[in-house]
Amino acid sequence: MTTSTFTVTGMTCGHCVSSVAEEVGKLTGVQNVDVDLVAGGASTVTVTSVGELALDEVRAAVDEAGYELTGTPA
Amino acid sequence: MTTSTFTVTGMTCGHCVSSVAEEVGKLTGVQNVDVDLVAGGASTVTVTSVGELALDEVRAAVDEAGYELTGTPA
Repeated sequence: MTTSTFTVTGMTCGHCVSSVAEEVGKLTGVQNVDVDLVAGGASTVTVTSVGELALDEVRAAVDEAGYELTGTPA
Repeated sequence: MTTSTFTVTGMTCGHCVSSVAEEVGKLTGVQNVDVDLVAGGASTVTVTSVGELALDEVRAAVDEAGYELTGTPA
């Protein structure tokens, strides 16, 4: 199992968290999505998956939910 | 047709707007719900209905959505 962490901006509430978790959760291999909400700031999204995730796919899922993936903290 | 206006706090995004519109929209006689979102502040909710709305019912619907009805501007 692989754990990847991303920073996402634009999220403000629990509904936003649900939207991101739903879209990212649809990606192949994703087992769990955990969001540490920083309302109006940079939230941390931790994804547990079978195998490595393609950054472009995660970015597209976050975009689909209506937010922006701004980075991948070390 | 009657138009009533309420102020609601705690809303931060479009999802919050949808939640409030959905719950208030379920009230008997309600024809339309319009929300002017002030993220993190006092948003204005305008409800168009057949007949007068009971303030307690609107307050309960807003509470059910997870927010607080704080007043009825003149």
